[in-house]
Amino acid sequence: MKKSDQSLRRVVLARVPAGRPASDDFRVEAAPRPEPGAGDLLVRVLDLSVDPYLRGAIAGRHLGSAPVGVGDVLPGRAVARVEVAAGPFRTGDLVVAETGWQDWAVVPATAAEPVDVPPGVRPSAVLGVLGMPGLTAYAAVTRLMRLLPGDTVAVSAATGAVGATAGQLAAAAGCRTVAIVGGARKARLALEEFGYAAAVDRLASDWPAQLRAYAPNGVDAYLDNAGGEVLTEVVSQLAIGGRVVLCGLMSQYNDGPPSMLPAGTLIGRRASAHGLVVYDHEDLRPSFRARVGSLLRSGELRYHEDRRHGLAAAPAAFCDLMSGRNAGKVVVEVTA
Amino acid sequence: MKKSDQSLRRVVLARVPAGRPASDDFRVEAAPRPEPGAGDLLVRVLDLSVDPYLRGAIAGRHLGSAPVGVGDVLPGRAVARVEVAAGPFRTGDLVVAETGWQDWAVVPATAAEPVDVPPGVRPSAVLGVLGMPGLTAYAAVTRLMRLLPGDTVAVSAATGAVGATAGQLAAAAGCRTVAIVGGARKARLALEEFGYAAAVDRLASDWPAQLRAYAPNGVDAYLDNAGGEVLTEVVSQLAIGGRVVLCGLMSQYNDGPPSMLPAGTLIGRRASAHGLVVYDHEDLRPSFRARVGSLLRSGELRYHEDRRHGLAAAPAAFCDLMSGRNAGKVVVEVTA
Repeated sequence: MKKSDQSLRRVVLARVPAGRPASDDFRVEAAPRPEPGAGDLLVRVLDLSVDPYLRGAIAGRHLGSAPVGVGDVLPGRAVARVEVAAGPFRTGDLVVAETGWQDWAVVPATAAEPVDVPPGVRPSAVLGVLGMPGLTAYAAVTRLMRLLPGDTVAVSAATGAVGATAGQLAAAAGCRTVAIVGGARKARLALEEFGYAAAVDRLASDWPAQLRAYAPNGVDAYLDNAGGEVLTEVVSQLAIGGRVVLCGLMSQYNDGPPSMLPAGTLIGRRASAHGLVVYDHEDLRPSFRARVGSLLRSGELRYHEDRRHGLAAAPAAFCDLMSGRNAGKVVVEVTA
Repeated sequence: MKKSDQSLRRVVLARVPAGRPASDDFRVEAAPRPEPGAGDLLVRVLDLSVDPYLRGAIAGRHLGSAPVGVGDVLPGRAVARVEVAAGPFRTGDLVVAETGWQDWAVVPATAAEPVDVPPGVRPSAVLGVLGMPGLTAYAAVTRLMRLLPGDTVAVSAATGAVGATAGQLAAAAGCRTVAIVGGARKARLALEEFGYAAAVDRLASDWPAQLRAYAPNGVDAYLDNAGGEVLTEVVSQLAIGGRVVLCGLMSQYNDGPPSMLPAGTLIGRRASAHGLVVYDHEDLRPSFRARVGSLLRSGELRYHEDRRHGLAAAPAAFCDLMSGRNAGKVVVEVTA
């Protein structure tokens, strides 16, 4: 083997971002490819997931991961191909595993899962609609929203990996769904691709009035991925008995001010708010896989990927995600 | 009948309070006693309930009552004695009804209920532990808090009509209860009379540290009657999966700033917050009456009244209540 065959490329944190991350907060570097130990897989990373939670991890405030420091490889799940096999896997198998932002990785076979998607569905769906974002949406819609058919359901970041799945699951449950998005392009995507009954562009100054027009009897359930002023406004438009699922605070990830819920409004509307962390809802995974798998097979549920090409594109992909310049699940084709 | 026999005394709003109400926001006046129509009772008001919700009603923001304007009689429920009978009631019967702040009232017999209390329990308990405040506490503890034995339950305004009942019901459910009160006298009352495991005086600057010491694993459920900084602090001390029941915002009733819940903390703790309005929980009334009646009979549940004497004492009683200078359910003995 040539020397160059034994190296890898990876993306590390070059400095801690102040507010919104920028591409030069990251650095691509070469490193020796590690040797797999006993029970380890050596994998070639194919499709890398880029997720908003990472902004909190960089700041050291994400539940599910250690803080990311300067010089550390950015964490992330990926679809990868087994090159050196171990455990139940064979060379050439596709697995999903926590590889980080690099083109090769060594992972324990016990920490890898086979990629299991319905026919016609991309393997990378295990990073989105069939992965953590999908399970998040499923837990919100089936467990915390307590939906009845006919309920009006609002979703912010409505074309994102979580939002798009949640909106479609709520619609499949007989609810009227209203997308809250940033920009006309995402509004079109919400209506044309994800079947929302209505879409509101939060960049338009009259969006609260638009929302009121689409939800004249108030919002029965709201999946908040936004925080900030969007959260405040939708809470003020809750129906009696409304449910807010707090799922992400995009406005706050980039060091924005804390998002607040007015207690008096919650009392007046007899409303409730629930903090959602997906790790609490692992028990739903079998029913989630069965239901979402079935909806994917039948074509009732759609997913949309914003695919970027090459590992070096990962920092910009993340920066776009944190600025709302993505549409759909952000996936980096590492080997492209 | 002499002319004077046909008059009544009543308390009306003299001016809209700015912030904390003062006694001269109210005026006692004489008025002709109204004649009961067909189906009406004429009642002598005995024990008048004075409640925090009234502050919101005066400001025109209470759900359950019309706004109270200048010149209007203050609303309130009372135990009263039937003087002119109608419907199923006989002269001399005790009823509970919405009489307002006056010594005589005409009420439709259909809007009056018989006073039904266990032996040894004051009739005025139907205004507190067996009335709306008790049902509020019962709904919070049995329905919204989703308690397990061993949970740590914090209650603010812990010696008030709602708080004291909630604390005792939670303790009876096997929970560890921590009272949050204003002042050493109420802290003693909480410990000695209402069986709280611990009491924290929110007027002491180190009360957050005291609470942390009493709830080292975090607060599993919190009944908030306070709002403001107390709410903010307790939310910051929630356990994973903690439940906040928003019941009253004493800090806000007197035109204080809006009470806010940090969404990020709710997510991080996977906590939930529920707005409670007692009118939604009427379905619990039979089980509430049976359970609280039984605990009162056995002496396991105690209630404490702050009794004031004479209708003219009602404004000061209300002002004291809104300044936290009461201890227990505020009842005015109108005919004293």
